[in-house]
Amino acid sequence: MIAELISVGTELLLGNIVNTNACYLSRKCAELGYALYHEITVGDNEARLCEAINTALSRADVVILTGGLGPTEDDITKQAVAKVLNKNLVTDEDSRRKIEEYFKFRYQDNPKHTISENNWKQALKIEGCTVVGNNNGTAPGYIVEHNSKVIILLPGPPSEMIPMFEASIKPYLQKRQNKIFFSNMVKICGIGESKAEADIIDLIKAQSNPTIAPYAKDGEVHFRITASADNEEEAKRLIKPVVDELVKRFGINIYTTSEEETLESVLVKLLKQHGLTLATAESCTGGLLAGRLVNVSGVSEVFGEGFVTYSNEAKMKYLNVKEETLRQFGAVSSQTAGEMAQGAARAAGANAGLAITGIAGPDGGTSAKPVGLVYIAAYLNGSVAVNEYHLKGNRQKVRELSVIYAMDLLRRMILSQMNNQQF
Amino acid sequence: MIAELISVGTELLLGNIVNTNACYLSRKCAELGYALYHEITVGDNEARLCEAINTALSRADVVILTGGLGPTEDDITKQAVAKVLNKNLVTDEDSRRKIEEYFKFRYQDNPKHTISENNWKQALKIEGCTVVGNNNGTAPGYIVEHNSKVIILLPGPPSEMIPMFEASIKPYLQKRQNKIFFSNMVKICGIGESKAEADIIDLIKAQSNPTIAPYAKDGEVHFRITASADNEEEAKRLIKPVVDELVKRFGINIYTTSEEETLESVLVKLLKQHGLTLATAESCTGGLLAGRLVNVSGVSEVFGEGFVTYSNEAKMKYLNVKEETLRQFGAVSSQTAGEMAQGAARAAGANAGLAITGIAGPDGGTSAKPVGLVYIAAYLNGSVAVNEYHLKGNRQKVRELSVIYAMDLLRRMILSQMNNQQF
Repeated sequence: MIAELISVGTELLLGNIVNTNACYLSRKCAELGYALYHEITVGDNEARLCEAINTALSRADVVILTGGLGPTEDDITKQAVAKVLNKNLVTDEDSRRKIEEYFKFRYQDNPKHTISENNWKQALKIEGCTVVGNNNGTAPGYIVEHNSKVIILLPGPPSEMIPMFEASIKPYLQKRQNKIFFSNMVKICGIGESKAEADIIDLIKAQSNPTIAPYAKDGEVHFRITASADNEEEAKRLIKPVVDELVKRFGINIYTTSEEETLESVLVKLLKQHGLTLATAESCTGGLLAGRLVNVSGVSEVFGEGFVTYSNEAKMKYLNVKEETLRQFGAVSSQTAGEMAQGAARAAGANAGLAITGIAGPDGGTSAKPVGLVYIAAYLNGSVAVNEYHLKGNRQKVRELSVIYAMDLLRRMILSQMNNQQF
Repeated sequence: MIAELISVGTELLLGNIVNTNACYLSRKCAELGYALYHEITVGDNEARLCEAINTALSRADVVILTGGLGPTEDDITKQAVAKVLNKNLVTDEDSRRKIEEYFKFRYQDNPKHTISENNWKQALKIEGCTVVGNNNGTAPGYIVEHNSKVIILLPGPPSEMIPMFEASIKPYLQKRQNKIFFSNMVKICGIGESKAEADIIDLIKAQSNPTIAPYAKDGEVHFRITASADNEEEAKRLIKPVVDELVKRFGINIYTTSEEETLESVLVKLLKQHGLTLATAESCTGGLLAGRLVNVSGVSEVFGEGFVTYSNEAKMKYLNVKEETLRQFGAVSSQTAGEMAQGAARAAGANAGLAITGIAGPDGGTSAKPVGLVYIAAYLNGSVAVNEYHLKGNRQKVRELSVIYAMDLLRRMILSQMNNQQF
């Protein structure tokens, strides 16, 4: 079954808001096994909207529209669909009553408030359609079945659209599908996208069911393995050998095979598992590593403190980095990084320390120490590991990659020190 | 002039990533005076991509494509454009050399690393096009002029696409317009979007040239004032009275009227202007405030150190928060926040301290101290100001808003203490 999305709203075309609805609905379509080949955004213009609906109907089984159901002049989605299908708009008595109740409740302190003509627009429905209740606003949704096709109209605000989709549209779409789709994520850190793909190009080329789709994120590569089957058990049975093969090929580079887990949550989990505590010391990343760890709810069990030591003085004062080290090797050096990691752990009384020092740019680079040079050190139970990185990108990117590589370094160190393979 | 956007990538159609590129480019088109009537997303499928390009060329003067320029099998944007225009792909020697340099630099410690066949794909260009340099990745962009139309190909990752657009595509598109569009940004912190809009609804309703467009960001409201004119001076003359009026109405709530300035850069500038130094102390934000300050290149002049004190022990050890204070009022309290700010400044020998302590959720809330309760304290030359906030949203949002409000609190405190209005 093929679906197509049409997002309606001039505010999208002006770039006033990010179209998160398209992302949400795309994901839902994929989960429900509807193939999505086109997503369209058009403004509040009847001719262009009608054309988009016609085109979508010519190539998809299900057309989902979001936006343009509000009470104002430029909300025209319902009219456009009615026009394309050559149907009338008729009053839905139930919707009319709900609008009355809504305004009565909202303006209970102001009995003189009258409902404007525009608001009654929201009581109109396309004849023969199913009206879908909206518990979070005044605009109902609509399901229109027409010949063998379905057109679904949803309100634009995500706070109304998402609960409506979950409650009413998802079960409806599920019923129209006979297959279920199930997927598993394999998340990798420490290998580039092209290398990762090259390593499993034979699997990618041979794929049919399940499919293997790579996604490159900054510093990471994710593979989604998706199977379609009659039921979840059958899908899982199809997926398992592919995931097993990836685990065999990528080994320790895989940090999780769970959709929900992130690099920081995996690191925090590992620390907890081994009864370890961590302290951080950051120079060029200025707190981003600590900030990312604190993403994990409940991190306080393993992480109590961190240091942002941007200046040399702070590195000496809090982390006990030697003046001699700074003078001889500089703040951006393997030696300083190592002393920072060890110093942070000591100061905090933690088992592990993680330190980042580097030149994030755009200024501060020299030919000997160019922008992008970053040293990352991990200290764990008496040992220190330091890696040197040459990172490409702007200040922001250098700092984000540094944070990712730091977490990955400690993850690997814990796994190897504990001689405890994750998989 | 009409523009059309085509976003290419199956990951978009699967809902794996939000299409922020479309939002960014839509806004840029609006700013440059290009009318945008359609935005399309298609997957990595040649036939559908070619069809989308053909359709876009039939209705727009400028077609902008993002994505599908990478080295992997499913990166097909260049091939599709060449096919539609009936042109060849030829090797661009300059791109070839850059790829060699990139990999030589990246794998300098591993001389055995060879460049895979896939990577050379990125050295191919559509014959007769202009190659646009990419300082943040290996995929160049391309500008193809064909008959009276223009096709622009940009890489998908925003960290590569945005700098390329700003440096090369924006000036190119500007030159193709006969009118110039010039705009000025008024950035506000401390007032909600609807309040801000209501305060200038008369100006918004009366707008024609210049136009006034509001953009709500987390914790901030930006108004873009755009004039079209024959030249920049004329546009600036049209814009000035509107900006002046906004400055009059919003006063100290405006932190800048410059496009380039951010809240953190304005705060760092203010600290520099007044010869002040700052230290940070963070609990629930875990380093994000320090990380955001360090966004500003050259921040080291005013910011040398910060503390991530997630545990009570760390708050006492480094910031000298009294055990009695923690016991009597709790870690999330006005008193603790105040002591943290003062303690951070004292420990670092700084004039100013900024502290955040709160409950970011999803766990840890109680009826007395619910999720979203955050105390922010600023210390400046002996005085302490503490604000209590009740923030809405998930963990991430509560933490981001906290960072913004903290910076804004210190900004206001400096301005009022120095009795030195910014405008």
